[in-house]
Amino acid sequence: MNTVELIRKKRDGKKLSNEEIEFLISNYTKGKIPDYQFSAFLMAAFINGLNINETSALTKAMLYSGKVLNLDDIPGAKIDKHSTGGVGDKTSLILAPIVAAAGVNVPMISGRGLGHTGGTLDKLEAIPGFKTKLNLKEYKSVLKKCGAVLIGQTRDIAPADKLIYALRDVTATVESIPLITASIMSKKLAEGIDGLVLDVKTGSGAFMTKLNDAKNLANSLIDTAISFGKKVIAFITDMNQPLGNYIGNWLEVYESIKILEGEKVDDLLEVTLNLSGAMIYLGGKANSIKEGIEISRKMILTGKAYDRFVKIVQSQGGDISFIKNPNKYPKAKYNETITAESEGYLSQVNNYEIGIASVELGGGRLTKDDIIDPKAGLVFYPKIGTKIARGDKISDIFTDKKEKIDEVKKRIINSIKISKEKPKEIKLIKAVINPFNK
Amino acid sequence: MNTVELIRKKRDGKKLSNEEIEFLISNYTKGKIPDYQFSAFLMAAFINGLNINETSALTKAMLYSGKVLNLDDIPGAKIDKHSTGGVGDKTSLILAPIVAAAGVNVPMISGRGLGHTGGTLDKLEAIPGFKTKLNLKEYKSVLKKCGAVLIGQTRDIAPADKLIYALRDVTATVESIPLITASIMSKKLAEGIDGLVLDVKTGSGAFMTKLNDAKNLANSLIDTAISFGKKVIAFITDMNQPLGNYIGNWLEVYESIKILEGEKVDDLLEVTLNLSGAMIYLGGKANSIKEGIEISRKMILTGKAYDRFVKIVQSQGGDISFIKNPNKYPKAKYNETITAESEGYLSQVNNYEIGIASVELGGGRLTKDDIIDPKAGLVFYPKIGTKIARGDKISDIFTDKKEKIDEVKKRIINSIKISKEKPKEIKLIKAVINPFNK
Repeated sequence: MNTVELIRKKRDGKKLSNEEIEFLISNYTKGKIPDYQFSAFLMAAFINGLNINETSALTKAMLYSGKVLNLDDIPGAKIDKHSTGGVGDKTSLILAPIVAAAGVNVPMISGRGLGHTGGTLDKLEAIPGFKTKLNLKEYKSVLKKCGAVLIGQTRDIAPADKLIYALRDVTATVESIPLITASIMSKKLAEGIDGLVLDVKTGSGAFMTKLNDAKNLANSLIDTAISFGKKVIAFITDMNQPLGNYIGNWLEVYESIKILEGEKVDDLLEVTLNLSGAMIYLGGKANSIKEGIEISRKMILTGKAYDRFVKIVQSQGGDISFIKNPNKYPKAKYNETITAESEGYLSQVNNYEIGIASVELGGGRLTKDDIIDPKAGLVFYPKIGTKIARGDKISDIFTDKKEKIDEVKKRIINSIKISKEKPKEIKLIKAVINPFNK
Repeated sequence: MNTVELIRKKRDGKKLSNEEIEFLISNYTKGKIPDYQFSAFLMAAFINGLNINETSALTKAMLYSGKVLNLDDIPGAKIDKHSTGGVGDKTSLILAPIVAAAGVNVPMISGRGLGHTGGTLDKLEAIPGFKTKLNLKEYKSVLKKCGAVLIGQTRDIAPADKLIYALRDVTATVESIPLITASIMSKKLAEGIDGLVLDVKTGSGAFMTKLNDAKNLANSLIDTAISFGKKVIAFITDMNQPLGNYIGNWLEVYESIKILEGEKVDDLLEVTLNLSGAMIYLGGKANSIKEGIEISRKMILTGKAYDRFVKIVQSQGGDISFIKNPNKYPKAKYNETITAESEGYLSQVNNYEIGIASVELGGGRLTKDDIIDPKAGLVFYPKIGTKIARGDKISDIFTDKKEKIDEVKKRIINSIKISKEKPKEIKLIKAVINPFNK
């Protein structure tokens, strides 16, 4: 096989065989195909697309560029969740203990935040002592003991994805549904899971701002999961405003604890319960998503989910005194309140800007080398449709960076729109795609 | 400006401004944009295309990446010719002295052969002593003295083109009309010419095998030349069989001398005279291409073109005793004759294969590092439509490589088709595009 011929084939819109895709990925990973050839291939694939067979072959080649975990020695179903990321999306922290408490294993390998979206790893690391780097033995041991484990991607997992993602990032080839699909699925399949629940976000704070793109991505992920014999359900959920109210790493742990303690945060609870319900259903512990949701509620009400969360944190080295008494967590140096400058209904939120506001306060990173302040972030109070009077609290911001405060205040005020007329209600769960329940 | 943003723009089929294209080319040439980003841009440009403004801006940026010669101190029009290359195409060697003898300057910067096509430089260097590397002073001095000069591309001329071509070659981004246009025109415009005659070849031995692609390339070249205020005429000519009969470096010099001595080789003469006629017309020494053709014939008949050729060779250091007495040129070790194995009419030639046969005999190069044997090559006798009897001479081959003889014989026999029915006549000049004579 000849690299230039394969690039030419994709350039001309032809289909590549499994062997041809395997050739490209394995040789690129080994350094035998230079970056400049692979980026030409990526651009051709971006523009001309990859069909489901090619996407599946690409996923497989990336998956087998590294280690694929075998969890057969751990009894019971293993189900994970993947979200395409958003602002205030802390569902992983809440659903992992719920689903584990319901008897379904959750072996979760998560990522870090970049840009306006947060990352589960950064949130977990806000808990003093919490270790997100475990070796395989520790990983299995926590999973066996707690029914759930939450770690970061290791070097062994899909190394091709790391290399390819770094190249896509600098060659304008990121926003491609087949390339995104292979990136997500190669990492998730390496976990040794039986099934996967997907949360594809759409709206101003999501990666896929348009509903149609989100649907296409969901279908591509589903088709690929099925081609690997995995059970899968996808949700398309709204990301036109923060999920819940807290944004920032410790702040999101805090809100998760509140939910696990039984507090009602409507939108966050609804999305979390749908996802956990589907996971419990895919794991065989419920006969429908609906029943899974009921079981999830029970896990919260009985305190079992909360207890499980404490157990996971403890097993991964976290200091549970902060879970039991969140108010003892160190406070940011500055805390300012932003209030409404006009009255009416909150009709629109530029959720991307809210995400960036949290980053500017120290709660995220714009480049990979930025250092996160776990205390930093903001609470965003109103939801779209909320009636607002002049002077009503819109947001509390927390930061150690005094110099950022004025800019961030302006950013938050400019990111919301208050109108006289009540806006149409936003549908939180926009679609559920369950290929096994037609 | 941001490289990734510009790649994204072209990826999404948007138009780039002059400044954006200039940014990409100048930074790539300076090494500030890495290969992997530029190859992604090239692939996006290949698939989504560049319009005439973008092509012109690309040409300009590549042109001004190096030195642009100023020939204002040499009186009279400066007209060059460019051919897209073919098998047996030695028209440059014949038309340069014809046009110079007619009073129009021909400042010609040529390339080397690669793959199945030959290159003017290699042919000239077959003449012992002929120097194709001249400095600017020598270049101007020969042009002033002889009215023509034939040299190779220097480092100063369009260095961006060399870099970009090398990258295109390994990333399957060669066969793009706008990219080819910018590559050709940036080099030709650097010569300091007033006008250009283009010979775009089409057929089995051409780079553009399909007539439509050839027309598109011709129009793109014309539009770009006009955007730089240059006079231009394009011919689309047939390359479904060798032009003339001789293929190989010295063999083509030999056939050129024969033509300049007045010998009639129908197809070669017809293409050469059309091109030289157009050059004389663009140079203002004839009122039409037709009149230019008449003048060209006169230059041959009166011996002026031959004398001019001798003068050019001498001025560039060539040993003219080989021009005056071509038979004293060293002979290849082996000379074998291929004869027809069946009878009928020659109905088809795979001209690409004939070109490769010459390369295999030592007359060309498949990679840039191959060494050429100037004596090697072949003579291909029949033209499409010729009546052939069993045993008729098809080809004489000349080589020092004994081990290649059997393979090449097979290759030549397999590249021709002899049919019972007389094939349709092939039109040699398929189109003349003269934008100033509508």
